[in-house]
Amino acid sequence: MAASPDIEHSIPNEYLRRHPVAAAGQIEDMPDRALGDALHGVDSAALSVTMEYLSPVKALTVFALLPHSQQLEVLDQAPPRLAVTLLTQLADADRDSLLAELRPVSRDDLKRLLSFPEDSAGRLMSTAFVTARAEMTVEQALKRLQQSAIRGARSLFVVTGDGRLDGRVDIQDLALATPEQTLATLVAPVQEAVGTRTNREELVELLDRSRQDSVPVVDAEGRLMGVVRYRSLFHAIEDVATADLQKMVGVSPEERALSTPGFAIRRRLPWLHINLLTAFLAAFVVGLFENLIAQFTALAILLPVVAGQSGNAGAQALAVTMRGLFLREVGIRQWRAVLGKEVVVGLINGLVLAVTCGLAVFVWSSSVGLALVIALAMIMSMLAAGVAGSLVPIILTRLGQDPATASSIILTTITDVAGFFSFLGTALLLSFML
Amino acid sequence: MAASPDIEHSIPNEYLRRHPVAAAGQIEDMPDRALGDALHGVDSAALSVTMEYLSPVKALTVFALLPHSQQLEVLDQAPPRLAVTLLTQLADADRDSLLAELRPVSRDDLKRLLSFPEDSAGRLMSTAFVTARAEMTVEQALKRLQQSAIRGARSLFVVTGDGRLDGRVDIQDLALATPEQTLATLVAPVQEAVGTRTNREELVELLDRSRQDSVPVVDAEGRLMGVVRYRSLFHAIEDVATADLQKMVGVSPEERALSTPGFAIRRRLPWLHINLLTAFLAAFVVGLFENLIAQFTALAILLPVVAGQSGNAGAQALAVTMRGLFLREVGIRQWRAVLGKEVVVGLINGLVLAVTCGLAVFVWSSSVGLALVIALAMIMSMLAAGVAGSLVPIILTRLGQDPATASSIILTTITDVAGFFSFLGTALLLSFML
Repeated sequence: MAASPDIEHSIPNEYLRRHPVAAAGQIEDMPDRALGDALHGVDSAALSVTMEYLSPVKALTVFALLPHSQQLEVLDQAPPRLAVTLLTQLADADRDSLLAELRPVSRDDLKRLLSFPEDSAGRLMSTAFVTARAEMTVEQALKRLQQSAIRGARSLFVVTGDGRLDGRVDIQDLALATPEQTLATLVAPVQEAVGTRTNREELVELLDRSRQDSVPVVDAEGRLMGVVRYRSLFHAIEDVATADLQKMVGVSPEERALSTPGFAIRRRLPWLHINLLTAFLAAFVVGLFENLIAQFTALAILLPVVAGQSGNAGAQALAVTMRGLFLREVGIRQWRAVLGKEVVVGLINGLVLAVTCGLAVFVWSSSVGLALVIALAMIMSMLAAGVAGSLVPIILTRLGQDPATASSIILTTITDVAGFFSFLGTALLLSFML
Repeated sequence: MAASPDIEHSIPNEYLRRHPVAAAGQIEDMPDRALGDALHGVDSAALSVTMEYLSPVKALTVFALLPHSQQLEVLDQAPPRLAVTLLTQLADADRDSLLAELRPVSRDDLKRLLSFPEDSAGRLMSTAFVTARAEMTVEQALKRLQQSAIRGARSLFVVTGDGRLDGRVDIQDLALATPEQTLATLVAPVQEAVGTRTNREELVELLDRSRQDSVPVVDAEGRLMGVVRYRSLFHAIEDVATADLQKMVGVSPEERALSTPGFAIRRRLPWLHINLLTAFLAAFVVGLFENLIAQFTALAILLPVVAGQSGNAGAQALAVTMRGLFLREVGIRQWRAVLGKEVVVGLINGLVLAVTCGLAVFVWSSSVGLALVIALAMIMSMLAAGVAGSLVPIILTRLGQDPATASSIILTTITDVAGFFSFLGTALLLSFML
């Protein structure tokens, strides 16, 4: 563990410089009101390193607390990606006034990055890379790498006379070559390059497929613009993987925990209206049994139990299948195996729950008929939940749809309708026992 | 795009060698019955490269179709991680007989890897690394690297006389150094090393925090055992990120789409019983209004509408908040901001839905009272759903719990109870209008 001084009152510059990660952790935990004091007299260069490790929200808080002159220094010294993150969160006027005062070289760099769509390769790329010409010797290339002062370079990019990307030289090959060898003898063709507008999902998929450390970003003419490193996609991979969580319940993957209410409402309301339609469909099924319910009110009381159980069991089957598809552990060709498993699980879980639930209902109502009805309904609806939970995402994928987007609502509709039908239908058939 | 020959009948070895990724994609799409023929006469070395890009299930299918002698060749030539994946999926007897026939060096390596727990650093690590001594010159170290025939090395590890890990030398520094320099002048301390039993979640978190390319794995005595590279965690990052999907609905994160039914049943049943308890709680609330329902059956019919809407709205707020916490975009300190947003969203969505739903119910029932009751219930339950959906994961995190594990069931209970109470309670108050 790094030393952790009491930084409530001021953050020692030495601490920031030596333990940026630990310092970031502590800043993250500090209440905003204490931060203003703690930042007093802090060194901009050291701070801009630490800020990289802060959450975007906290980084902006820290930035906003800095005096104007220090804001400029941070923007100048921070990695361009952090600077862009900060700038995009500022009001337009603040952003423009800060940009106007920056050194021209930083300003132009940031302006260019800001012009790319959010979550695009243009935003995610690093502009710290080294280019060389194929006819250069290893010695010349190494000198150039040394002068660049870039740390942790993994490749050197070979470009043609007009700046177009022509290949890459792995740094290991460079280390093992003789000084007078030319790069032409070491260069490997670039397997995949992307445009500045390639989105995050495509980048994640590409890096997964190609098993490269990084992917070069080129402009329309094939000139090297930057490099998206595997590292910088850590957050993107997590982000793409968790997007399904939101898509499944009708939330746009672009919505963030602190998006504006207006954005959230606009994106969620249409889905809630679709949900309303399916809820009315479930109500319609219940309505078919109106006379029966009027006669036996206990049925209305037990309705939430049937819906709750089949809904949860269906969600279990759906989650496991969705995740398997996402992680490519199963393909849609294996639908029989997945379905078979969920049928067995649904049947056995249904049988066990039928016993528990039947007993509980018998204790509550002293009615053998009611206990039998809910037990039979439990078996049928668990089975339906297993079938629907496994097949809905597979069928959606087969139809070329994103399995996350509609699966939850289709599933709920099926489990509600199946649950109500099996429960009230069985009750009707066995009404002589109620 | 790579050339894609018709490989339905046999897979050209040249194609496997030159386009392993594309070939894997096509093998993945082939029906199992066609695979047997297609694999006839295939070269084991080329195949073992391609198999790395297959899903675990398909890789095992391919492996099972190979003649015994070729299975041995694949195990011998494949990267140890793939070999372990295949071996762990075989029956014990098959695994032991294959292991017994392997070359001793492969066998010992694989046996050691198999001894580590699944998803541990010991399983995920690569054993392809180069060590050197601090007193070696750059020239000697480069020679050793060359002899190792390892591709894409990023670091050289410096070990002491008794084999303990003492530091790492970045390959870039090696490339830029003079041949007679000693490694002692280049070595950087190892910031973080892990044990063989460190689990995947900790590795992902560590690599995220430390921003390193790889993390060395050491034994109890500090001897270097292997290296977990960032690359090999791609799947692990996705896996950890999507685990919440299952945890939320009471499925163990260890369950896979093709786990055995027995495993799935054992893990899911306890949760379904907890769900049953909360469903009975919802039923209890409905039961409080038994007389009212007996009088107005329409209330029983509309119950699924209220539960469906508040459940979905709650799930929306929950998904956004959970994802924000997971991606560290918000911290629990920002609970006021998150709650504030969801209250506004719940209130406005509730108002809009109250209008739609009230109108629909009026058209269906011609009862102003019933329409008014469902409209008021909609506003109240949407608000409750927003509050619960945002606060439940925040409170669980604050209590040191995994927010995914119980949030869904707590949320459903709250939205059901709040929905039924607000709907039936309002109906009771306004029963003179029904």
